[in-house]
Amino acid sequence: MRFDLTFFHVASIVISVLAFATAVWLYRWVVSQPSSNKRVAEVGQLIKRGANTFLAKEYKALLRFSIVAVLLILVFLPSPIWKGDPVINITMALSYIFGTVFSGIAGKIGISIATIANVKSAEAATKGIKPSFMAGYRGGAVMGMAVVGSSLLGVTLVLLITGNTTALLGFSFGASSLALFAKAGGGIFTKTADVSADLAGKVELGIPEDDPRNPAVIADNVGDNVGDVAGMGADLFDSNVASMAAALVMAASLGNPEENMKMVLCYAGIGLLASIIGVFTANMKEGGDPTRALNTNTYVTTLLYGVLTAIATYAFDFNWRIWGASAIGLFVGTIIGVATDYFTNDKKKPVRMVAKACESGPAFTITSGVSYGLLSTLPAMIGIGISALAAYKIVAPLGVGGNEVAYGMFGISMAAVGMLSIVGMIISNDAYGPIVDNARGLVEMGDLGDEALEITDSLDSAGNTVKAVTKGFSIGAAGLTVIALLGAFITEVNDAIEALGGANAVDAFGKSVEKITGFDVTDPIVFFGLLVGAAIPPVFSAMLMLGVDRNAQRMIAEIHRQFKEIVGLKEGKPGVEPEYDKCIEIATEGALKELVPAGLMAIVSTLIVGFVGGVNAVGGFITGNIVSGLIFALFMSNSGGLWDNTKKYIEAGNNGGKNSEAHKAGVVGDTVGDPFKDTAGPSINTQITVVTLVASMLATLFLTFSIF
Amino acid sequence: MRFDLTFFHVASIVISVLAFATAVWLYRWVVSQPSSNKRVAEVGQLIKRGANTFLAKEYKALLRFSIVAVLLILVFLPSPIWKGDPVINITMALSYIFGTVFSGIAGKIGISIATIANVKSAEAATKGIKPSFMAGYRGGAVMGMAVVGSSLLGVTLVLLITGNTTALLGFSFGASSLALFAKAGGGIFTKTADVSADLAGKVELGIPEDDPRNPAVIADNVGDNVGDVAGMGADLFDSNVASMAAALVMAASLGNPEENMKMVLCYAGIGLLASIIGVFTANMKEGGDPTRALNTNTYVTTLLYGVLTAIATYAFDFNWRIWGASAIGLFVGTIIGVATDYFTNDKKKPVRMVAKACESGPAFTITSGVSYGLLSTLPAMIGIGISALAAYKIVAPLGVGGNEVAYGMFGISMAAVGMLSIVGMIISNDAYGPIVDNARGLVEMGDLGDEALEITDSLDSAGNTVKAVTKGFSIGAAGLTVIALLGAFITEVNDAIEALGGANAVDAFGKSVEKITGFDVTDPIVFFGLLVGAAIPPVFSAMLMLGVDRNAQRMIAEIHRQFKEIVGLKEGKPGVEPEYDKCIEIATEGALKELVPAGLMAIVSTLIVGFVGGVNAVGGFITGNIVSGLIFALFMSNSGGLWDNTKKYIEAGNNGGKNSEAHKAGVVGDTVGDPFKDTAGPSINTQITVVTLVASMLATLFLTFSIF
Repeated sequence: MRFDLTFFHVASIVISVLAFATAVWLYRWVVSQPSSNKRVAEVGQLIKRGANTFLAKEYKALLRFSIVAVLLILVFLPSPIWKGDPVINITMALSYIFGTVFSGIAGKIGISIATIANVKSAEAATKGIKPSFMAGYRGGAVMGMAVVGSSLLGVTLVLLITGNTTALLGFSFGASSLALFAKAGGGIFTKTADVSADLAGKVELGIPEDDPRNPAVIADNVGDNVGDVAGMGADLFDSNVASMAAALVMAASLGNPEENMKMVLCYAGIGLLASIIGVFTANMKEGGDPTRALNTNTYVTTLLYGVLTAIATYAFDFNWRIWGASAIGLFVGTIIGVATDYFTNDKKKPVRMVAKACESGPAFTITSGVSYGLLSTLPAMIGIGISALAAYKIVAPLGVGGNEVAYGMFGISMAAVGMLSIVGMIISNDAYGPIVDNARGLVEMGDLGDEALEITDSLDSAGNTVKAVTKGFSIGAAGLTVIALLGAFITEVNDAIEALGGANAVDAFGKSVEKITGFDVTDPIVFFGLLVGAAIPPVFSAMLMLGVDRNAQRMIAEIHRQFKEIVGLKEGKPGVEPEYDKCIEIATEGALKELVPAGLMAIVSTLIVGFVGGVNAVGGFITGNIVSGLIFALFMSNSGGLWDNTKKYIEAGNNGGKNSEAHKAGVVGDTVGDPFKDTAGPSINTQITVVTLVASMLATLFLTFSIF
Repeated sequence: MRFDLTFFHVASIVISVLAFATAVWLYRWVVSQPSSNKRVAEVGQLIKRGANTFLAKEYKALLRFSIVAVLLILVFLPSPIWKGDPVINITMALSYIFGTVFSGIAGKIGISIATIANVKSAEAATKGIKPSFMAGYRGGAVMGMAVVGSSLLGVTLVLLITGNTTALLGFSFGASSLALFAKAGGGIFTKTADVSADLAGKVELGIPEDDPRNPAVIADNVGDNVGDVAGMGADLFDSNVASMAAALVMAASLGNPEENMKMVLCYAGIGLLASIIGVFTANMKEGGDPTRALNTNTYVTTLLYGVLTAIATYAFDFNWRIWGASAIGLFVGTIIGVATDYFTNDKKKPVRMVAKACESGPAFTITSGVSYGLLSTLPAMIGIGISALAAYKIVAPLGVGGNEVAYGMFGISMAAVGMLSIVGMIISNDAYGPIVDNARGLVEMGDLGDEALEITDSLDSAGNTVKAVTKGFSIGAAGLTVIALLGAFITEVNDAIEALGGANAVDAFGKSVEKITGFDVTDPIVFFGLLVGAAIPPVFSAMLMLGVDRNAQRMIAEIHRQFKEIVGLKEGKPGVEPEYDKCIEIATEGALKELVPAGLMAIVSTLIVGFVGGVNAVGGFITGNIVSGLIFALFMSNSGGLWDNTKKYIEAGNNGGKNSEAHKAGVVGDTVGDPFKDTAGPSINTQITVVTLVASMLATLFLTFSIF
C-alpha cells in the first residue's frame, strides 16, 4: 500500500488524540476512586497547593526566559532578520513558544493527576494492594499519555503548518527550555526539601519521617511531584521531541525526504499506540508482585512495537533497513535497562557489597558506592556505542553515491526514535513511583494503619526497582538522540552554507567557508572544543549540587526559626501547625535562583566556543559534551540509586538493621546520592540537548561571525 | 652555529651524567647529616626494610609481566616476526627491557634516599626548620635528578644505538609498564595501610596516629615512600619519556628530521640543566616559609628554561615557532598549577566552604567536595585545550604543502616537552612531601619533642600545598603528552601502511587499507571507540578503589588478630611489639593482586576495540580515554587534596576544631579523598599512556587483522 505523507500526518494526529482520550478516561477513573479520610484529603490539598505554587513560579520564570529567547530568535535565528526571510524567523519563534506551551501543559496535567492519585492510592491501600496499585499506576499513565500525545501532536502540527523541518528545532528548543527549568529546577527543589526535612527533622530533632510537625514535610512531598513527575515528564518530552526532530531534519535532507519522514511519523505513532495498549494490560492479582506487573507492561509494549512496526513496514512498503535501525535501538535500550538494574538491585552483588561496606563507616559507603557507579557506566556506554554503530552501518548503504554518512546518521536517529518509542510506558512507570511514595506519606500522616503502610511500602519499593531500568533506558535514549542531533547540526551547517552561496559562501570577514563532512579530532580546533565541551557536564552538575546545598541551608534556617517562634510546635500541641508555605516558597525561589547560573553557563560557553572557534569547535564541543555527559549521568544516577537501595536494604534488617552504625553510614550514602540521582544526574541529559539545539540554531551565526 | 645531531646526543649524555653527579653529591650530603637517636634509627630501619620488601615483590611481579610482554613483542611487534625484519622486533624488545630497568633503577634510588632522608630530617628538626627542610628537600632532589637523568640518558642511548624512533615506543612502554605497577600498585599499598591504620587504630581503639602499638603504622609510613616517592617518580619518568618519544617519533617523520630531533634533545637537556641549577638555589632562612622556598625554585627553573632555550634557539639557529610551542606549554602548565592551587588551598573559598559544610555532617562534606572537584576540571581542561591549540597553530605553518597536520601535532608534542621540561624540579618538590611526612612520624615515634613536631608539621603542610601545584602541572603535561601520542599513533599507522605497500596496501583479508589523516567523530566506528574509550578511566579507577577497600579489609582483620593474639600489645607493655611485617606483606600482596585485573582490563579492551574496529576505532578509543581520563584525574586528585586540606584546616582550630562534629565529617571526607587522590586519580595518567602506547605498538596488527 502506498499512502502520501498527509495520511501519516493525519494518522499521527488521530493516534495523539487517542492518547489524550485514554488520558481523560484514566483521569476520570482515578478521580472516581473513593476518598473519605479527612486528614488524608487535607494533607493532599496542601501538597496540591504547594505543587501548584511551584509550577506557577516556574512557569513565570520560564516566561521571562522565553521572552528573551523569543526576541533573540526573532532577530537572529536561523539567520539575522535583515539578511534572511523574516517569515522563517517568525515561524521559528512561534515554534519555540509552541514547544514550551505543549510541554508546559503536559506537566500541568501530570501534576494535577499526581496530586489526586496519591490520595486515592493511599486510601485504596486500606482495601488491598491491587486497588492501591491501580490508582498509582493509572495516575502515572495519565502523565505518560499526555506527554507522548502532546509531543507527537506538537511535532506533527509544526511540520504540517510550517512545512519546515528547521522550525522543529525551534519547537524542540522550546521543550528543552522548559525541561531545563522543570528538571533542574524541580531537582533542586525536591532535594532541598528532602535533605532539609531529614536533617532538621530526623537527625536534629529525632522526629520520624513524614511527621506533620516538620515544616518541610509538605515541601518534601511536593518535591516528589515537581521533581519526579513534572520534571521527569518534561525531560522525556524533551528527549522524545528531540529524537523526532533530529530524525525529521535529517530525513528531509536525504534523497527521498517524503518516504523517510513517513517512516519517522509512522514508527513514532506505532510506539504511542503500543504504549496505549500496554497501559491497559497493566494489571495485577491481589497479592501479586507490583514489580512484575510494571515490567510486564514494558515487555508487552516493546514486543507490540516490534511486531506492529514490522507489519507496517511490510504493508506500507517501507525500507527494512530503517526498520532494523529502529528495532536495534529498542533492543539495546532493553539491554541497557537490564544492565543498569544489576547495579541498583538489592538482590545483586553491588548493593550487598556496599551494605557490607557500610559496616566500616560512611567513608567506605561512599568509596564503594562511587566505585560501583563508575563501573556501571561501561555496559551502557558499550550499548549506546554498539547501537549507534549498528544503526549507522545498517542504514548507510542506502546512501549510494557519497551520501552514506548522511544516511548513516539518519540511521542513528531512527535507533533513537526506536528506543524512545515506548516512552509512554516509561513515563507511566516513572510517574507511578512518586505517586505511591506520596501515598506512603499520606498513609503515615493520616494514620491509616500498619497494613496499609506495608502495602504502600511494597508499592514504593517496586517503583524504585523499576526506576533503575527506565532510567538506564532514558539515558541510553538521550545518548542516541544527542548523537543524532550532532548529525542534525551538520545538516544545519551545510544548509546554511548552501544559503550563503554554496561553493562561493563567505563569512562576515570575507573568508570562504566550506561544507563540513565531519569533525576530525586531530584538528586542534575540534580537539579544543572537545576538551572544553567535556568539562561542561561536570561543572553543570557541580553548580546544581552546590545550589542544593545553599538552598538547603536557607531552608534549615527557616525550620529552626519556626520551631523557635511557633509556640507548641515542637511539643506537637493539637491545633498548632507549622507554616508549610514558607518552606515551599524558599525551596521554589532558591531552586529557580540556583538553576539560572548553571543553565547560562552551559549556553554561554556554547556561544563563546562557537564565536571563537566556529562550527568545527562547536562540533568538538558537542561531542565532548555528549561523551562526558553520558558518563556523569550514568555514574551519578546509578550511584544514587545504589545508595538509596542500600539504605533500604539495611533498613529491612540486614547488616545490623535500622539504627545500627551501618544504617547511619547508609543514610550518609543516601543523602549524598539524593542530589546525584535526582538533581545533577538526570539534568545532564537536558543540558546536553539544550547545548546541541542552541548550537544547531546558531549554526549560521557561528559560520558567519567566528574568529577562527 | 650549526652542530650535527651527534653533538646533541653527546650533550644530552653529558647533561644526564651531570644530573647523576648532582644526585650522588646530594645523596652524600644527606647521608652525612647527623643521626644519633636510637629509636628513630630503629623505626627508620623498619620503614626502609618494608619499602624494600614492597619494591622487591613489585619488581618480581613486573618481571613476570615483562617476560610475557617481551615474548609478545619479540613475536608480534611492530609486525609479526615471520613477516617483518626480526632485528626490529629484537630491538623493540630490548628497548622495552631497557625502559623498565632504567625506570626501576631510578625508583630504587629514590626509595633508598627517601628512607634515609626521613630519618635525617626528623633529627634535624630538633635543631631548627632550616636543616630539617634541607634534609627533606635534598633527599627529594636526589629522586628528581635520578629520574630525569635516567630518562634523558635512556632516550638518547636508545636513539643512538638503534637509530630507530619506533624503538623509543618500546622504551616508553617499558617505562609505562613499570609505572603501572609502581603508581597503581603503590597507590593501593599506601591507601590500604593508611586507611587500615586509621580505622583499626584511631577509630576503633582510640590510639593516636603513628602510635607504635599499631601493627599497621610502619606499613603506613612505608606507603608514603612506595606510593608517593617511587610511584610518583615512575609516573613522571613515564610521562617524561613518553613526551620525548612522541616528539621524536613525529620529528623523525617530518621534512627535516635531524633538525627537529636536535631541538627535542636540546630543549629536554636544557630543562634538566635548569632543574639542576634550581635544586641548588633551593634554600631557606631560619624561620622562613618552606612553601615559598619550594615555589621559588620552581619559578627560577621555569624562568631559566625560558631564557636558556631562547639563547639556544638563537645560537643553534633553531626554528622560533617550535621554541614558541615549548614555551607556551610551560607557561600554560604554570597557569594550570595556579588554578589547581585555588581549589585545594586552605586560604581560598573552596576549602573554607567545605569546612563550613562539614558542620552539617559527612554527607555535605562529600557533596560539596565532589562539587568543587568537578568545578576544578574546567580551568585545566581549557588550559590544556588552549595550549594544544596554540602550539598546533604556531607550528603548523612550517608544514608547507599538505604537511600542516603532522607539523601541528609535532607542535603539541613540543608543548608537552616544554611543560615537562622542569619535571626534575617537580619530582624534587613532590618527593620532599612524603619524606617530611615520614619525618613527622619519626619525630612522634622517637619522642623528639613538641618543637620538632611543630617544625615537621609546618614542613609537611608546605609539602601538601606545593603538591597541588605540581599535581596540576603533571596532569596538564600528561594531557598534552597523550595528545602528542595520538599524533605518534597516526604516524605509526601510516608508516605501517607504507611498509605494507603504500597505496597498494591490503590487510590480511585482502581489503585495501588507506592512510589516515585523522579521526572523524561522525564516523560511527570512531564514535563507538570514543564512547568505549571514555568509559575505561572511570572503570579503571573504580577497580583500583574497590581493590583498596578489599585489601584494607584483609589488613584490618590482621590488625584485629594481632591485638587479640599478642599478649600485652594493646596495653603497650614494654618490649611487646606488633608484627609489622605481616601488615606490610598483606598490603604488598594485595596491592599487586588488585592491580593486575585493572591493568589487564585497560589493555585487553584496547585489543578488543582494535581487532574489532581497526585503527579508526582505536583512534576514537584513545581520544575518549584522554578526554574522560583527564576529567577524572583532575576531579579525583583535586577533590582528594581539597578534603585533605579541609581536615587539616579544621584541625587547626576552625569550624569547631579537633574532635568536633565538623572534624569527624572532615575525617570522612579525607578518608574518601585518600584513594581518590593517591590511588585512582594519579594512576589514570599511566593508564592512558599504557593504552596509547599499546595501540601505537600494535598499529600494524590492528591494520592487518581487524574485523571491520
